Amino acid sequence: MPEKMKALQKTFPQPGAEIKEIPIPEVKPGLVLVKVEVAAICGSDQAVYRWPKHIAAKTSPPFTMGHEYCGMVVDVGSNVQNFSVGDRVVGETHVPCGNCYMCRGGTQHLCINMKSVGKTYDGCFAEYILVPESCLIKVHKNINPSLGAIMEPLGVAVHALQKTNPCGETLAVLGCGPIGLMTIAVSKQMGAHIVFATSRSDAKLNMAQKMGADYQFNSRQDSVVEAVKAATNDEGVDTVIEASGSKEAFIEGLEILKRHGKFCLLGIPTEPVLFDADLFLIRKELNITGVWGRKMYSTWMLVDQLIASGKLNVNPLIGDVYRIEDYASAFEEAASGTVQRIFLSPG
Amino acid sequence: MPEKMKALQKTFPQPGAEIKEIPIPEVKPGLVLVKVEVAAICGSDQAVYRWPKHIAAKTSPPFTMGHEYCGMVVDVGSNVQNFSVGDRVVGETHVPCGNCYMCRGGTQHLCINMKSVGKTYDGCFAEYILVPESCLIKVHKNINPSLGAIMEPLGVAVHALQKTNPCGETLAVLGCGPIGLMTIAVSKQMGAHIVFATSRSDAKLNMAQKMGADYQFNSRQDSVVEAVKAATNDEGVDTVIEASGSKEAFIEGLEILKRHGKFCLLGIPTEPVLFDADLFLIRKELNITGVWGRKMYSTWMLVDQLIASGKLNVNPLIGDVYRIEDYASAFEEAASGTVQRIFLSPG
Amino acid sequence: MPEKMKALQKTFPQPGAEIKEIPIPEVKPGLVLVKVEVAAICGSDQAVYRWPKHIAAKTSPPFTMGHEYCGMVVDVGSNVQNFSVGDRVVGETHVPCGNCYMCRGGTQHLCINMKSVGKTYDGCFAEYILVPESCLIKVHKNINPSLGAIMEPLGVAVHALQKTNPCGETLAVLGCGPIGLMTIAVSKQMGAHIVFATSRSDAKLNMAQKMGADYQFNSRQDSVVEAVKAATNDEGVDTVIEASGSKEAFIEGLEILKRHGKFCLLGIPTEPVLFDADLFLIRKELNITGVWGRKMYSTWMLVDQLIASGKLNVNPLIGDVYRIEDYASAFEEAASGTVQRIFLSPG
Amino acid sequence: MPEKMKALQKTFPQPGAEIKEIPIPEVKPGLVLVKVEVAAICGSDQAVYRWPKHIAAKTSPPFTMGHEYCGMVVDVGSNVQNFSVGDRVVGETHVPCGNCYMCRGGTQHLCINMKSVGKTYDGCFAEYILVPESCLIKVHKNINPSLGAIMEPLGVAVHALQKTNPCGETLAVLGCGPIGLMTIAVSKQMGAHIVFATSRSDAKLNMAQKMGADYQFNSRQDSVVEAVKAATNDEGVDTVIEASGSKEAFIEGLEILKRHGKFCLLGIPTEPVLFDADLFLIRKELNITGVWGRKMYSTWMLVDQLIASGKLNVNPLIGDVYRIEDYASAFEEAASGTVQRIFLSPG
Repeated sequence: MPEKMKALQKTFPQPGAEIKEIPIPEVKPGLVLVKVEVAAICGSDQAVYRWPKHIAAKTSPPFTMGHEYCGMVVDVGSNVQNFSVGDRVVGETHVPCGNCYMCRGGTQHLCINMKSVGKTYDGCFAEYILVPESCLIKVHKNINPSLGAIMEPLGVAVHALQKTNPCGETLAVLGCGPIGLMTIAVSKQMGAHIVFATSRSDAKLNMAQKMGADYQFNSRQDSVVEAVKAATNDEGVDTVIEASGSKEAFIEGLEILKRHGKFCLLGIPTEPVLFDADLFLIRKELNITGVWGRKMYSTWMLVDQLIASGKLNVNPLIGDVYRIEDYASAFEEAASGTVQRIFLSPG
Repeated sequence: MPEKMKALQKTFPQPGAEIKEIPIPEVKPGLVLVKVEVAAICGSDQAVYRWPKHIAAKTSPPFTMGHEYCGMVVDVGSNVQNFSVGDRVVGETHVPCGNCYMCRGGTQHLCINMKSVGKTYDGCFAEYILVPESCLIKVHKNINPSLGAIMEPLGVAVHALQKTNPCGETLAVLGCGPIGLMTIAVSKQMGAHIVFATSRSDAKLNMAQKMGADYQFNSRQDSVVEAVKAATNDEGVDTVIEASGSKEAFIEGLEILKRHGKFCLLGIPTEPVLFDADLFLIRKELNITGVWGRKMYSTWMLVDQLIASGKLNVNPLIGDVYRIEDYASAFEEAASGTVQRIFLSPG
Repeated sequence: MPEKMKALQKTFPQPGAEIKEIPIPEVKPGLVLVKVEVAAICGSDQAVYRWPKHIAAKTSPPFTMGHEYCGMVVDVGSNVQNFSVGDRVVGETHVPCGNCYMCRGGTQHLCINMKSVGKTYDGCFAEYILVPESCLIKVHKNINPSLGAIMEPLGVAVHALQKTNPCGETLAVLGCGPIGLMTIAVSKQMGAHIVFATSRSDAKLNMAQKMGADYQFNSRQDSVVEAVKAATNDEGVDTVIEASGSKEAFIEGLEILKRHGKFCLLGIPTEPVLFDADLFLIRKELNITGVWGRKMYSTWMLVDQLIASGKLNVNPLIGDVYRIEDYASAFEEAASGTVQRIFLSPG
Repeated sequence: MPEKMKALQKTFPQPGAEIKEIPIPEVKPGLVLVKVEVAAICGSDQAVYRWPKHIAAKTSPPFTMGHEYCGMVVDVGSNVQNFSVGDRVVGETHVPCGNCYMCRGGTQHLCINMKSVGKTYDGCFAEYILVPESCLIKVHKNINPSLGAIMEPLGVAVHALQKTNPCGETLAVLGCGPIGLMTIAVSKQMGAHIVFATSRSDAKLNMAQKMGADYQFNSRQDSVVEAVKAATNDEGVDTVIEASGSKEAFIEGLEILKRHGKFCLLGIPTEPVLFDADLFLIRKELNITGVWGRKMYSTWMLVDQLIASGKLNVNPLIGDVYRIEDYASAFEEAASGTVQRIFLSPG
């Protein structure tokens, strides 16, 4: 076992990142050391890399970046009960305390003392990562590691669908980034009746169709509200999953919902939203919520089943793997508007 | 049986109303004629009377005003199955079509073809009112008619609590108008653990305490957010019922909620609300909704049980009864900031 | 318009039935006259026909048999609001009163004053049937009438799945009569992960496979409990739908469920069931329920969507159509163990 | 710190138990040593003591008995995060593995590898008990230790009410042992509208009235079914909590429920139950379930709030405290038909 490893770290409060040689962390009681096979670049990694003001305001370097990964267990601390050397694992980003009223109440994914891998806890853009066993999920020995690494964002899509349960219903997914596209694929697998996809990009709408969307509307050209109403006999849809982060799409989503409809926010808005609470909450009695991460662990269990079924095809969303040293090119491609997840291989 | 009756009508698109002599309506198949004993003045009647711009824009005189009432059945049309002359009844404001997808889906209180008593359907500020049997609820022969007449707004409070189920939880009720105060009383009856009340008026907060609130905060003097956090060990509350219609209170409500908390809007906001969707929907995963009227009829059944129990004391909220001819004074008192419902007696 | 029509009636308290010439009923307020195109023979019609002791004890001839049908509206009474001559319709078997606490509470399918078409209300094995508009559902003009006629039993399957929500879960359907087979097809459409089918007939299990079952076990040859446990890594299934009516299958269903699992009874048991309440209710915390008919009308709306989607293929379950005069042969084939619905055409 | 302690152990496969001097267990990582202040005698301890056949068949001496206790933390192992010396704590009986699909799915109270304090894990009828920190709940410093020790059985009552949510509903509690009586008290606190209590003992029914029951029926003298129907206008009740373990009461409970009603089993039946699944599951669509222990930890959190409210008065159910050496007399009194919990003090 070597003593040092490469890690892509955020070391300074400015755009960019750098490769550092750092010690491989030592196992302690309750912790597991994982050799990272492949790690995916998420939008939030991109934000840490680009360093916009709202990220800079709440992020404190230095730390190792990255939080979506698949790897092999190479060492376990004392008191670890459920993992052994040689297990293939994927990682949950959130590290809950296990003791606060949110954790004890069955909502540890909303722990009030949460740490976050790749931000407030050293991440997976490194040869090794050391995490509590509660943040690991065992996967099949022969899973494609890139598919394993996107189980985390896939879990966000699944979590939104667990909350809204679109089975037999009409659903609109607003925004076709990777998680929006996963939402479309999973919703059809979960029995959604008709799925509308919207995006500002025809390339993304083409992918939406491949993922199973029944209708695609380009929100640059079409009025999404009119188009959805026209296609639903003026009724609107049962459920909206907002996956774009746009405040205009947020309002469109509220408008295309039927009365009593369900709205779930996935896309992270960068600006406050101005909305007509009388119309949407009282006169339409909408149910508005959002998702933060994944239910620990019912979402992971469902993600695992969906993949095991062999019917969920998210392979078109799996993109190129770059060596960790080529991180600059990888971040460039990930920011290029591609619908695919881009990966780093630290090995 | 006389042929004419007095009715307080909105006859012109300006502030005010007038007493008219009009024909007593004739029963038809499916309809029931009710002699009104007493009718209550709701905030929405007040708005029709005062005629602010946002009401003027969507209201079309002439029509008989009023929608909260208690009375006696005096005639029934053919095909009426469940009411007989001599029944004491109270009225549901909303007249659903019974056939649209909302009605058939078990949500007729959100009918897409809804008519509204006292606005788009002749109301109860009159000696008689003619309504479909589906808009009547039988009550005990010897109920106090004024109590009967406020079962409709009481139903709004109960509906909000049916949605949020505060049993064993901490609850904040923002705003202490009549419906806010009813919400407090009912929530304690339904097992709420700790109830916070906020208002800008000490008189209303005194009444909130009588209704069972455990803490009262005057939002003119106190920071509601700090006061609630201080009283909850910095955790916040499980549920917020916003009953003031203020956009500032709306945001305060979101801030004092625990993660995963429940927010229900009762108070009608007159302005759009600007809110941080990332913080409240994603990072806190709040559940935000509102209520429109009452569930037909599970809310009415629960209201009936709560009153029958003898333990719900809303009598302090029952105010003066005016003769219908004295409507101007009645509307004056109702607008004076009183916490009591004010009544008109058309007999 | 003729004055007389043929009707297959149960006229005597013994096995059998007879064709009678009877007056075509006259429309009255609220009622709709439907010309029956095709009607299906349900297990409960078979029971009325065969007249076993437990049916004889609670059934009072004379009445026109039959309750699953598709037809055209040919006349409407005054006060009918939602149907016009020329509409194609299918019929709900249950005629609720609309007024009792079950009806007003949103559960009119469990009305305490229920009448039942084809048993306590004249049925559809006739050229015409006269029913309240609340018992009709409009369908597409060009639906195959036989498919229309089986929307009622399909609704029973859908109702059981609405209650158990097998999306993403493992499900066992015990018994592969027509409704069991429909349950399999719908559950896969609704996103069930793995579906087990059991039956005592290989022919039915072959059909189960066509309907989408992942595993088929012949309960004559296999131990269902061992086979399901073996296929689920000894965990068992999330949900069981018991569609056989066998008391042995009932217990098998409880045994193959995971802790906290969901059990829904569809098949009508003819004998009391003896079960270990300590094991199944306390130590396993199972949730046990059943279904009676269909939710009025959320089930019908979902059935309509499932058919409209074009992906639900229940055509293999649609069997022969007999002239009503040939009812004896039709009842014979329906009792022969076929997996198909058999139809009568009264025209 | 001494090295030895007294413990009441089941050491032989026959009726009875004996006091032994045994080593005080040593703390290890993740474990907490608690000095027991007081421990309560549960029905299941009584069964271990009396040694009936069905207990003998599945219980393996030797072990220290007892599982309901309140005490003080006196030592903590490494890696214990949430407890410190001097904390006052109460104990959860069930020791889940934390890793199986039940645990990871949010139902660790139904862990498939569960150990049970006082049966398969050394119990609290001893001066000290050593348990994982996940089995401890911190309570207020100045709680009455006897009240602390009955939070565990109180949790069973609360769990049943969390499942059935009797707020605003009519409820029957069948059987008035300590947990049945707690169920009555908590249900009124949670907003149950009318509560019926049944028992074969007038003394227990008197206590039921003190706990808040609205009606008491002695099932030796009255027909429970007729009495409940008479008192509910022939409608029956919304919810039944069966707390007697009698198979006759089980059936009575199903009979007195309204259609669509909720049944929850608390009392442990010693014989199989024979029931009419067609009537109760299909024609009445009842929902039948039971409870095993407490939700970890939402039940504990609600128990804590109910006690903190100061309105839940279960003090009448707190009985005598015996020295551990006088266990024979304590078990005698606990078996005497008293409605009170009887305690052992090992100190």
